[in-house]
Amino acid sequence: MSSTISPLAPTAFPDMPAIAGVKLATAAAGIRYKGRTDVLLAILDKGTTVAGVFTRSKCPSAPVEWCREKLARGKKAGFARALVVNSGNANAFTGKTGKQATALTATIAARAIGCEAREVFLASTGVIGEPLDGTKFDGVLSELAAHATPGDWMSAARAIMTTDTFPKVATATVKLGKASVTINGMAKGAGMIAPDMATMLSFVFTDAPISAGALQSLLKAGVEDTFNAVTIDGDTSTSDTLLAFATGAAAADGAPRISRASDPRLKAFTKAFRDVLADLAEQVARDGEGARKLVEIIVEGAVSKPSARRIAMSIANSPLVKTAIAGEDANWGRVVMAVGKAGEPADRDRLSISFNGVRVASKGARDPSYDEAEVSAAMKQPEIQIKVALGLGKGRDRVLTCDLTKEYVAINGDYRS
Amino acid sequence: MSSTISPLAPTAFPDMPAIAGVKLATAAAGIRYKGRTDVLLAILDKGTTVAGVFTRSKCPSAPVEWCREKLARGKKAGFARALVVNSGNANAFTGKTGKQATALTATIAARAIGCEAREVFLASTGVIGEPLDGTKFDGVLSELAAHATPGDWMSAARAIMTTDTFPKVATATVKLGKASVTINGMAKGAGMIAPDMATMLSFVFTDAPISAGALQSLLKAGVEDTFNAVTIDGDTSTSDTLLAFATGAAAADGAPRISRASDPRLKAFTKAFRDVLADLAEQVARDGEGARKLVEIIVEGAVSKPSARRIAMSIANSPLVKTAIAGEDANWGRVVMAVGKAGEPADRDRLSISFNGVRVASKGARDPSYDEAEVSAAMKQPEIQIKVALGLGKGRDRVLTCDLTKEYVAINGDYRS
Repeated sequence: MSSTISPLAPTAFPDMPAIAGVKLATAAAGIRYKGRTDVLLAILDKGTTVAGVFTRSKCPSAPVEWCREKLARGKKAGFARALVVNSGNANAFTGKTGKQATALTATIAARAIGCEAREVFLASTGVIGEPLDGTKFDGVLSELAAHATPGDWMSAARAIMTTDTFPKVATATVKLGKASVTINGMAKGAGMIAPDMATMLSFVFTDAPISAGALQSLLKAGVEDTFNAVTIDGDTSTSDTLLAFATGAAAADGAPRISRASDPRLKAFTKAFRDVLADLAEQVARDGEGARKLVEIIVEGAVSKPSARRIAMSIANSPLVKTAIAGEDANWGRVVMAVGKAGEPADRDRLSISFNGVRVASKGARDPSYDEAEVSAAMKQPEIQIKVALGLGKGRDRVLTCDLTKEYVAINGDYRS
Repeated sequence: MSSTISPLAPTAFPDMPAIAGVKLATAAAGIRYKGRTDVLLAILDKGTTVAGVFTRSKCPSAPVEWCREKLARGKKAGFARALVVNSGNANAFTGKTGKQATALTATIAARAIGCEAREVFLASTGVIGEPLDGTKFDGVLSELAAHATPGDWMSAARAIMTTDTFPKVATATVKLGKASVTINGMAKGAGMIAPDMATMLSFVFTDAPISAGALQSLLKAGVEDTFNAVTIDGDTSTSDTLLAFATGAAAADGAPRISRASDPRLKAFTKAFRDVLADLAEQVARDGEGARKLVEIIVEGAVSKPSARRIAMSIANSPLVKTAIAGEDANWGRVVMAVGKAGEPADRDRLSISFNGVRVASKGARDPSYDEAEVSAAMKQPEIQIKVALGLGKGRDRVLTCDLTKEYVAINGDYRS
């Protein structure tokens, strides 16, 4: 949608290797956008396991309900043959029509690739409340199935974008037993991003042979300090979906079959998997709507990690803190305000605050060494780290966000109309 | 600070009558602003009772701590002889210096009017973290004390403004027994406004003879659906203060002395007092930083009133809802999102949503009668009512907020520097 790429975008994209057992194809189905792709089909080899985490919204989208249901359903659950993603329409708050659209889409996809509808996973992103016309997938998906190839990952990442200004991909290759396995991920943001859920849409694929249960554990542990530690505007989408797929193709190269996330052979993989999630989550923050600054908030000395998280989120979601950063103003008074409103234990007279390593406040007052010129220079950087030391305990946490600019308001004041 | 008056400002100010037992004076002490008043002194006759509610911030300002302490201290508590308010500097997060500044200011005021320092109530608003030079009040307060008069209420309301674009006053006259008593109030906003506290600065004065305890009960009950039901940006100030003063002068006209808020003779007064608070709170919303629309959110059919409040606040604080309203877009999808993220019981398939009386969604989908032109016309009004019916129970609540505009970002990106 947006023509200007975020100034915080990565300067280069990684080479995305193919993953055995995954074929991709994209198309322009004209769901909402003109002149761009808006449908992604990923075809997965038989035996591919799947895991997912979703929005905690009480009003989730129809595709979220579809995926949850398929993941939960009995002993045949946990396997996937296809993923269909569309952008432009979230199929959320669309009532019965929405439910029918998911069923229809899955049926069309299943027919196109020869599997059961329950093995098709779905995700939709875009406008809420507009009926999604499932028949638009008719013809499109069978053509995609015919032309899917092992991998134009960048095109896939582009097809799922909405207000994103750049496609988000990450990859890692790591040893599992004696075999080399690959993890590829993609994500889209860029507004309505907040924790209490997976977050926006993200899909991670690997050829490692990992059971659905182990994959679910990896995913749940992995999102906690990655996607769940990113907030753009504190708004929680109805559609947030993170799915992971493991084709198991690397078993042919001697990779051991993993059935428990605690399996010691999985150690390197677990770290690489988490790194891919962290990379994607950071890219989401870098592409926050209207973002001009990437903001890392570190809270230490809290009474616990959850307490540190709540304080960090209070700072990260404060419009006054975010607008100050947009204005390159080291307004630590607003940081104090945000600490104070978090409702967590905090002692004003022990607080220290620094911006990009320059301490501006200590022991409840302006730092004696405070130098406006030094702080102002630090605030001109595109990446801003706010560190808050509470001096109460050992609780520490970190979240990522971005600044709040006039562009955010412009983007969101015009998006639907 | 701002030169353009909010388009939502009242078209006329009420005539503010004098209140027996209250004298006011303002001055330009040069605390931060140039060419405008920034200090208000209110002198109160002996026997004036006082009550207060304050921010719930864990990092409150020095004046908030001062007032709390004075209100809590033994049997001499509950009486006031003076109120000193300054704008331009919040005296918050100023460490020991801040505490010294409050003590010094109270001492100077006490000397100027001949009372105890503990009988002086203080409030400060403006920048956080800058030391407040208490000596600036030296000379100023004694001069103010010498010239205080029964009442230029508009000047008083102007002296306490920061980014407010208009002074906020309200008045009511009501019978107490056979006497006529008056309630005058003033308030200042206009950013960093959120509930979980009194809210910004507001001061209410009456000549009714009401005990400190009864006044405190009135205040506590009164703020719940007024100041605590207003949010501009969800940010909670370190300084929010609402003080009420009752001089008791109307006792000379035969007003009965009231010692309990439940006294039946207080019924009309209680309503009028609440109306003054509601009027001031609405003016705060009308003067939200950058506001172009006044937004009333009504949630009904929730499982309880607190649940309705949380859902209403989730909508009111959603940047995506607020930017949509700024863009005159009836984006009810974002309202659904905000209902969903509130974490309260909600059933998507029972939800109905209307904007200014035009129903846009019902039973979990777009309303069959939805007419884009009709809705667009409704969104052009300066006052927008969003009504959400959950269809679950009898819980109902109402909150006020405003839209989120580029001007909000501009004001808060430049405020300190």
